[in-house]
Amino acid sequence: MKRRSFLKGAGVGAAAGIASPAIAQSTPTVTWRLASSYPKSLDTLYGSCTYLSEAVSAITDGKFKIQVFAAGEIVPALQVADAVTNGTVEMGHSGSYFYIGKDTAFAFGTVIPWGPNSRQMQAWLFHAGGLELLNEFYAKFNIYNLPAGNTGAQMGGWFRKEIKSAADLQGLKMRIGGLGGNVLQKMGVVPQQLGAGDIYPALERGVLDAVEFVGPYDDEKLGFARVAPYYYYPGFWDGCAELSFFINLEKWNSLPPTYQKVLKTCAMAAGHDMQAKYDALNPAALKRLIAGGAQLRPLPNDILRASYKHTKDLYAEMSAANPAFKKIYDHLWAFQQDSTRFWQISDLSFDLMSATALQQRWADG
Amino acid sequence: MKRRSFLKGAGVGAAAGIASPAIAQSTPTVTWRLASSYPKSLDTLYGSCTYLSEAVSAITDGKFKIQVFAAGEIVPALQVADAVTNGTVEMGHSGSYFYIGKDTAFAFGTVIPWGPNSRQMQAWLFHAGGLELLNEFYAKFNIYNLPAGNTGAQMGGWFRKEIKSAADLQGLKMRIGGLGGNVLQKMGVVPQQLGAGDIYPALERGVLDAVEFVGPYDDEKLGFARVAPYYYYPGFWDGCAELSFFINLEKWNSLPPTYQKVLKTCAMAAGHDMQAKYDALNPAALKRLIAGGAQLRPLPNDILRASYKHTKDLYAEMSAANPAFKKIYDHLWAFQQDSTRFWQISDLSFDLMSATALQQRWADG
Repeated sequence: MKRRSFLKGAGVGAAAGIASPAIAQSTPTVTWRLASSYPKSLDTLYGSCTYLSEAVSAITDGKFKIQVFAAGEIVPALQVADAVTNGTVEMGHSGSYFYIGKDTAFAFGTVIPWGPNSRQMQAWLFHAGGLELLNEFYAKFNIYNLPAGNTGAQMGGWFRKEIKSAADLQGLKMRIGGLGGNVLQKMGVVPQQLGAGDIYPALERGVLDAVEFVGPYDDEKLGFARVAPYYYYPGFWDGCAELSFFINLEKWNSLPPTYQKVLKTCAMAAGHDMQAKYDALNPAALKRLIAGGAQLRPLPNDILRASYKHTKDLYAEMSAANPAFKKIYDHLWAFQQDSTRFWQISDLSFDLMSATALQQRWADG
Repeated sequence: MKRRSFLKGAGVGAAAGIASPAIAQSTPTVTWRLASSYPKSLDTLYGSCTYLSEAVSAITDGKFKIQVFAAGEIVPALQVADAVTNGTVEMGHSGSYFYIGKDTAFAFGTVIPWGPNSRQMQAWLFHAGGLELLNEFYAKFNIYNLPAGNTGAQMGGWFRKEIKSAADLQGLKMRIGGLGGNVLQKMGVVPQQLGAGDIYPALERGVLDAVEFVGPYDDEKLGFARVAPYYYYPGFWDGCAELSFFINLEKWNSLPPTYQKVLKTCAMAAGHDMQAKYDALNPAALKRLIAGGAQLRPLPNDILRASYKHTKDLYAEMSAANPAFKKIYDHLWAFQQDSTRFWQISDLSFDLMSATALQQRWADG
């Protein structure tokens, strides 16, 4: 049964050059294509795909190969999920929340506004039942999801003009991913969703007034500071952002258990590595951006407060309209509340004291 | 040359049952023993060893086996590094800072007081040159280190009596790991280092007045609240704690490259998983502890401020006395300062707003 099911799967080649049938069955030669939503130049996001591909190949002695394709090489950036659903590619790499147009519950695979931070998200995914809930949902789209690593808390983005209060958001055309766009829409913003490679041209042409992408290291590469110098924080809609390795469900089921384990393990490793890479590269990038003229600003408090209320209203509306949304939201929010109360006395408490000590020069006595 | 070097290595058995010499060379049958410093009951810390062992076995089709032994089964909890150095076991799992008695620079493999948080530590290790520096140091002890995952910010520990100011620390006998003991010693505490299994008996017998271990989930299992009900935060000496897979350097070098990659990848995955597990389990454990009578308290501000100054003095002393300490400290501290300045506007900024919104009930408008 197991053997039959993986022989049925396309993309699984014949076992080559190995005498023992037992070995042949568990480690056949397999070649997959992985379509990413990101360009090669973003070595953080795209880099997690090459990390995965290299690790999978190395630990299977080259027998399981995953060929990585950048946005646009096989499908456009924001059509990766469709390409996985219909089997154009065995695997994709994307932000789940790009696909909220299909179903609002796609948001949870990445993050929701005023949602968990990076570690809270991963705790929920891996040890609080979050990933099981998500994969139950993704199955409707013929997708199996392996989390692909996190960016950490994102910046609030780049604005052509200074934002002094909620009134300054009226009519602003802004590139923003996921449900953050829906929240900002309630506050007068005109949200637009664009793949990484399409943002700068739109900003330069004046089609956009503002853009949020990720954080200093990626944003610097995309050049937003040249056109929109006001750089805001925090990005309350992206307290973190977990990327996704989307796998065609039949292709996943057709893999021998050994390769499923290889993929799961390598995705966990790639995820760990990507967050560390962001955290290592962002601080220096921020310094360069500021030296280059970027104007760092906190989002005004009235915007933060109002956004929180709008966010909760949005969740109530979406929960009423979509049982899949409600099911996952209720589960995540219950977890997040407990988690945040603990976070307050653990990491947040330490981080706050540590930053205060540095700023107030406690070392000087 | 490669083949010869791994045939020399003990613990590497003959390749069995595989016809092709190329395959035989890269995936021989190998059985290793891993000695952990922790008891089986701590399914977080010990659990990362079983996670690693299971993943390595599964993705090598059972050909690379790592047998996990709890503290005391082969060597006592705090002699794991020695057992790795002298080849008693191929691999150990421990807190590097248990071994500062050999060389103060062992502290950096875990964390130092007022040091990085979990993500900062991993950024430094994996993408800022930290791990290379550490392994250059560990080589003197015949050890190769693979980071084994983090606990997140730890609690300040359990005290029999309430601590109202720095004066209350005088003469306190406290179990504490790593350089935190040296800092608290400057503040009048009598620090003691004990393995997890030995702490509760010492506390119960009255040999200890206070104990810090990790956080709610582990601490609950060890039962400290029954004897010392005052539970303090934050543990400024353990803003995080990275565990270590210590590998005997010759055994590491004797592994075929495929198995080195397998181990590295599985250790990254195990590390990702362990932090998520802690973050998922700690919040509920804290609620149970409080319901059971634990008295949650913030460490008084005068203690935090004084500890910071003492910590910096300690680093100056240790840097003067030990070039290996100075080399790693200077590198880590340069990274941490930049990182903390970025953290302040990114994750810390978001976490603070998120906790504030929850506490002040912004959802109510």
